[in-house]
Amino acid sequence: QLEEVFEPLHPADIADLLEQVEIDDRNAILKLAGDYIDGEILSEIDEDIRDSVIEALEPEVLAGAVRELESDDVVDLIEGLDTEQQGAIIEVLDVVDRIAVEQALSYPEYSAGRLMQREVVIAPEHWNVGDAIDHMRAQDDLPEQFYHIILVDPRHRPTSYVTLGRLMSSRREVKLSDITEESFRTFDVTEDEGDVAYAFNQYHLISAPVVDEEGRLVGIITIDDAMAILDEEHEEDVLRLGGVGDESLSNSTLEIVKRRFPWLAVNLATAILASLVISIFEDVLAAVVALAVLMPIVASMGGNAGTQSMTVAVRSIATRDLTAANAFRVIRREAGAGLLNGFIFAVVMGIVGLVWFGQPMIGVVIAVAMVINLLAAGLAGVLIPIVLDRFKIDPALASGTFVTTVTDVVGFFAFLGLASMVLL
Amino acid sequence: QLEEVFEPLHPADIADLLEQVEIDDRNAILKLAGDYIDGEILSEIDEDIRDSVIEALEPEVLAGAVRELESDDVVDLIEGLDTEQQGAIIEVLDVVDRIAVEQALSYPEYSAGRLMQREVVIAPEHWNVGDAIDHMRAQDDLPEQFYHIILVDPRHRPTSYVTLGRLMSSRREVKLSDITEESFRTFDVTEDEGDVAYAFNQYHLISAPVVDEEGRLVGIITIDDAMAILDEEHEEDVLRLGGVGDESLSNSTLEIVKRRFPWLAVNLATAILASLVISIFEDVLAAVVALAVLMPIVASMGGNAGTQSMTVAVRSIATRDLTAANAFRVIRREAGAGLLNGFIFAVVMGIVGLVWFGQPMIGVVIAVAMVINLLAAGLAGVLIPIVLDRFKIDPALASGTFVTTVTDVVGFFAFLGLASMVLL
Ligand SMILES: [Mg+2]
Ligand SMILES: [Mg+2]
Ligand SMILES: [Mg+2]
Ligand SMILES: [Mg+2]
Ligand SMILES: [Mg+2]
Ligand SMILES: [Mg+2]
Ligand SMILES: [Mg+2]
Ligand SMILES: [Mg+2]
Ligand SMILES: [Mg+2]
Ligand SMILES: [Mg+2]
Ligand SMILES: [Mg+2]
Ligand SMILES: [Mg+2]
Ligand SMILES: [Mg+2]
Repeated sequence: QLEEVFEPLHPADIADLLEQVEIDDRNAILKLAGDYIDGEILSEIDEDIRDSVIEALEPEVLAGAVRELESDDVVDLIEGLDTEQQGAIIEVLDVVDRIAVEQALSYPEYSAGRLMQREVVIAPEHWNVGDAIDHMRAQDDLPEQFYHIILVDPRHRPTSYVTLGRLMSSRREVKLSDITEESFRTFDVTEDEGDVAYAFNQYHLISAPVVDEEGRLVGIITIDDAMAILDEEHEEDVLRLGGVGDESLSNSTLEIVKRRFPWLAVNLATAILASLVISIFEDVLAAVVALAVLMPIVASMGGNAGTQSMTVAVRSIATRDLTAANAFRVIRREAGAGLLNGFIFAVVMGIVGLVWFGQPMIGVVIAVAMVINLLAAGLAGVLIPIVLDRFKIDPALASGTFVTTVTDVVGFFAFLGLASMVLL
Repeated sequence: QLEEVFEPLHPADIADLLEQVEIDDRNAILKLAGDYIDGEILSEIDEDIRDSVIEALEPEVLAGAVRELESDDVVDLIEGLDTEQQGAIIEVLDVVDRIAVEQALSYPEYSAGRLMQREVVIAPEHWNVGDAIDHMRAQDDLPEQFYHIILVDPRHRPTSYVTLGRLMSSRREVKLSDITEESFRTFDVTEDEGDVAYAFNQYHLISAPVVDEEGRLVGIITIDDAMAILDEEHEEDVLRLGGVGDESLSNSTLEIVKRRFPWLAVNLATAILASLVISIFEDVLAAVVALAVLMPIVASMGGNAGTQSMTVAVRSIATRDLTAANAFRVIRREAGAGLLNGFIFAVVMGIVGLVWFGQPMIGVVIAVAMVINLLAAGLAGVLIPIVLDRFKIDPALASGTFVTTVTDVVGFFAFLGLASMVLL
């Protein structure tokens, strides 16, 4: 019955299905339905379980699946595997693909060289439309996917491109160099894949040539692969902002504990730091128990406001909307918003404190502490990501801990410090 | 000198530049460089300042810029504007474009109908490669961007498509129906744009036809527009998870205060709820001041662990990796991880509590409270997003508040409740 389930599904959906079941069930399915697992399904499988899936497949099924794939997809499939599994897969490729894959693996991880396909359609700059069409119709190994014909100079350096649509609608005698597209831009083979994805989205690229240090054409990146990277970069940012780092649903309980533990340990350290601040003021806490009741409110509001500023800042750095040119304006804006929100909630909490505990000075203390902490939250929320980014640390990765440490420490210190000055 | 700055820049970068300066500077630039502002720049301008930019342009500059655009870009440009501005822009379009734009605006916001372009290249199913090529070369108004020829049946319903590359490499007498692509899929005109973007990424689509209720072709969506939507959906999720909602760097201080205030107000309500829980235990707090010092640690660890689970859950719901099929496994996994992390940090905090305050029972209380709260965090982190999603509420929007409310309340209640049982 497995066939009936798999038959109508897209390979990407079959891969999702395999990701959703427990490892034992998955291995049972792979045993039963091995012949069904083709290259496309394999290359859709989540990186976290790829090694276990490959392990579970019969060698000949694996070889068949891998040989179906284009070289860029083989690279994507195996780049996360250990050297032994990599070697076993490269071995079954024919010699042309093997060289292409080994060449690609020689480029740095997460580079344009890893992302590109080597199959390109090129034409000399002096050709006309007729030449290009005749040339293409004569070839029998055109790439599966291509949208542009790349014009290259005599030294094999790409200089511009022509869309297939434009080629179709132009007369045969029109020169290719007269119908090139303005959108043309190239990427260095070592360029970061995240930057490539950003550029595809920012400049509405469909495909773009990749060049080596001498500017010679080595491959081409297409928008579908750039879109997948954009998605991955977002995923990474969201998970890092949530303090999770690198994990997926297919990880086991033990694996996620191992991955989340460091984040929680760092949080524990900062929480203990905040407690040390509180312990400075044990006297006033012992004297006025209402302070212990109200104290978390100041910290919580600061943490929330700081997270708001930080989210906007981290996101704007990622989209390159926050730059040196407008950093000052944004910092001033966050400080202003912190102050303004601080005043509003100071009034609210001042009244709450007064009504709840009947002591006007408690109301004043929480109001002033609120203004101070929301200002600190706004400033920390924007400054910390900017500074981390300046030091080449991913702001999505580390900002959260720093920001909430600031708002906890400032919140407790301001509230309890003011209280011990005013109430003791 | 403005010309020298603008000249080498891509329209998208010019738009970014205009977004980064203060409104007064921007209006000054628009006055000086009005002629430079073309349709492309206009359609790249952030939605938040679009109305003010349009306001600042001379009517004839605006009209010139808008007339350059294709109808789908005009729709994207004006759909966020008020009716008056919309009307002024639609008025300057020629009649064909005006009808196309008004038709598109009649579809629901965020639907495939708003996203598609109406310019498509079609062919009857019975044509061969030669027919298609001759037909295209005879036309002089082919769309600017197209990658597929859509095959339609006699009732104008799309049935499959052929890539331009495939067309190029096939002999003239080959039937189009013999070289169609498997990847073909259509979208309903009312389908949500987020679902469209998901499908483009999941199934590696390059373009896909849009059909009306009777299955007739009404337009086509291309991957560049789908990629932009994928990016927007991510942006929305990240901002909502950070408790910011809809804002951008170009908003003023007052605007961001207005937008962030409701989130902070909700947070204040939940923080007061947590304080009410603390106030139940004033007796034990007054008796043992160490509790006030340690209490925020339990809440903070719970909040962090809950945010971890929640981030994974919200993200997995968005990518459709968390479904009814594996929800139970994921819930069990989060509960297990919560317990396991709880035990680890219980031991650590038990020792810290003992060493710091020299009272073994304080160590025991904080250890047990830690286990309880991290278990609650794991469960709340995954259950709350699942339940919200079941009720058609965006989990990214509301989960955070609920999760931290649970971990605050459970944390304070468990810690102080145990303490009053054991220490009083
Ligand atoms: Mg998958
Ligand atoms: Mg591919
Ligand atoms: Mg990769
Ligand atoms: Mg990356
Ligand atoms: Mg590819
Ligand atoms: Mg990143
Ligand atoms: Mg931008
Ligand atoms: Mg922009
Ligand atoms: Mg839109
Ligand atoms: Mg949307
Ligand atoms: Mg478009
Ligand atoms: Mg969404
Ligand atoms: Mg998926």
